[in-house]
Amino acid sequence: MVSKKLGGRRAPTESDVAKLAGVSQSAVSRAYTKGASIAQKTREKILQAAKELGYQPNLMARSLATNQSNIIALAISNLENPFYANVAQQLSSQLREIGKHILLFTSPSDDETDPMLERALSYQVDALIMTATMASPELALQCKKAGVPIVQINRGSKIAGVSTVWGENHRAGEVAAEHLLKTKHKRFAFVAGSKTSSTSQMRQDGFIEHLAKSGIKNVPIEYGEYSFSGAANAARKLLSSKNRPDAIFCASDYMAFSVLDVAKREFNLNVPNEVSIIGVDDVPEASHSAYDLTTFSQPAGALAKAAIEIVEKMNSESSRRAMHIEVEGQLIIRGSTKA
Amino acid sequence: MVSKKLGGRRAPTESDVAKLAGVSQSAVSRAYTKGASIAQKTREKILQAAKELGYQPNLMARSLATNQSNIIALAISNLENPFYANVAQQLSSQLREIGKHILLFTSPSDDETDPMLERALSYQVDALIMTATMASPELALQCKKAGVPIVQINRGSKIAGVSTVWGENHRAGEVAAEHLLKTKHKRFAFVAGSKTSSTSQMRQDGFIEHLAKSGIKNVPIEYGEYSFSGAANAARKLLSSKNRPDAIFCASDYMAFSVLDVAKREFNLNVPNEVSIIGVDDVPEASHSAYDLTTFSQPAGALAKAAIEIVEKMNSESSRRAMHIEVEGQLIIRGSTKA
Repeated sequence: MVSKKLGGRRAPTESDVAKLAGVSQSAVSRAYTKGASIAQKTREKILQAAKELGYQPNLMARSLATNQSNIIALAISNLENPFYANVAQQLSSQLREIGKHILLFTSPSDDETDPMLERALSYQVDALIMTATMASPELALQCKKAGVPIVQINRGSKIAGVSTVWGENHRAGEVAAEHLLKTKHKRFAFVAGSKTSSTSQMRQDGFIEHLAKSGIKNVPIEYGEYSFSGAANAARKLLSSKNRPDAIFCASDYMAFSVLDVAKREFNLNVPNEVSIIGVDDVPEASHSAYDLTTFSQPAGALAKAAIEIVEKMNSESSRRAMHIEVEGQLIIRGSTKA
Repeated sequence: MVSKKLGGRRAPTESDVAKLAGVSQSAVSRAYTKGASIAQKTREKILQAAKELGYQPNLMARSLATNQSNIIALAISNLENPFYANVAQQLSSQLREIGKHILLFTSPSDDETDPMLERALSYQVDALIMTATMASPELALQCKKAGVPIVQINRGSKIAGVSTVWGENHRAGEVAAEHLLKTKHKRFAFVAGSKTSSTSQMRQDGFIEHLAKSGIKNVPIEYGEYSFSGAANAARKLLSSKNRPDAIFCASDYMAFSVLDVAKREFNLNVPNEVSIIGVDDVPEASHSAYDLTTFSQPAGALAKAAIEIVEKMNSESSRRAMHIEVEGQLIIRGSTKA
């Protein structure tokens, strides 16, 4: 056991606890080992002494012995987008229930795999969960070599060995198109995420293909880059065009909020009478009356649950085959679309 | 060095790297130790072999030797509130720049110290940063014994040894009162956070005391519990009272958004002509035109910077005296208050 020195004071060690409790050092070690043989009375005496001294068993040292750190690295690009803040919150509270914790890696951009992520491996993490960022082939290879499974939430991957958890992206687009058709809209547009996002592409494909079945073609597409300001620019382009859309489907709620703001305040349009807006995600803000957004849901809790299931399975079983789980969503109709 | 087994495959060890590079195991160890003596050529050969094998030096094992894990535990109650999501993002990206990472602990409630936090100590974290949650005397004692400094962001503490980083809470209340007085408001109200929040209390004191100087007394106060639904209930009570306020100061932006929603949609009030609303924080959403909220800022970047400064100082110096840093804010005037 190591002692941590700070300000001239050292943290209590296993041997300090043994001395105070009047037991052997190996008894202290057994007291903290699941399933180890130790008398209940001895154990209580040890825990009491540990509490008095402020002793904490060193989980890092323990992870060297058990090969399980109980730490999951989470790479996330942007906590400003409420969807990702929500996913992080769900992952954290669900992992806590099984005694695991998140080591957080935020990255400045949506598309770049942060080279710092390779450092996550140095912490002997049990898995790497990524949202809104994608594993580079290089990182995936390093993880494979180190035996650390990767799960991507809300982004696809063509790399073998990378597991993915998805919402119903293609169906989100279809359902949005169907709802807008049923409610008699005529001029459709799509605000996409980034060009490299498979998620955005699938939502777009579902939307465009479903409209095409009704003979609607040449649907304008603008890229909002998944950012608030990017989506505002996309909305400005679409809403100032000659053939102004009366229905805009956005690849995320966060971008839809921005499109709503621009439509109402900059173009003085009545939402939904002059333009209907649909998002994807159903973040909590979508139900706030400032936005009151119709959206196709992508439940953060269910996405987190699926990702953790994959991690547990890959950490416990001998199979290392990547898994892919699709999480169901549904259209939530609110005030941003015409009845 | 330990090998991690998963799916019948074991992670490469120091000795594997040594073998491939044709050097001794101690050379591999030196290659990864800052300042250790090793020829540049040998080092390159080792790094190349490590890359080929997917070897990562075990930072956990290393932390046992150096007493520095470079991991900071962050306890946070609610990532749904954009202020805290923002603080987490700022802490994460600023820590990354100095090679440190966040181990995340989310807790279900604002006021309760999660007992799980004591587990953070088992991971040999270098410090514990808490936002929107408060260290219990018990936890503070455990941290003290383990030599782990605690920094609370945006909550006070009466516990010796706990450092704090604050916005200008009292001044926020004064400045809000002054602005509302200058702009000819007559009937004031305050939406507080929770009863145990020192932050909310200081904002309230600044507001109430400044109004009292102008002879305004009996200002109604409702508790929004820092939640969206709690603030909505507070707004309903205030706005349905006989003497309906024409100026509401809220202890956070997040609650102010909820109050705005209720005022506009449920009471059909014109904001700001019939009621002005001011928040505290200046989260990014405050500038979105759906809210366009006047607010007293509490810059997340500066709060994170101050907290990290304290951690660095307490980890490097022999002094363990708690530090207290106040971060400056300013009134940002937007459309939710009368000109």
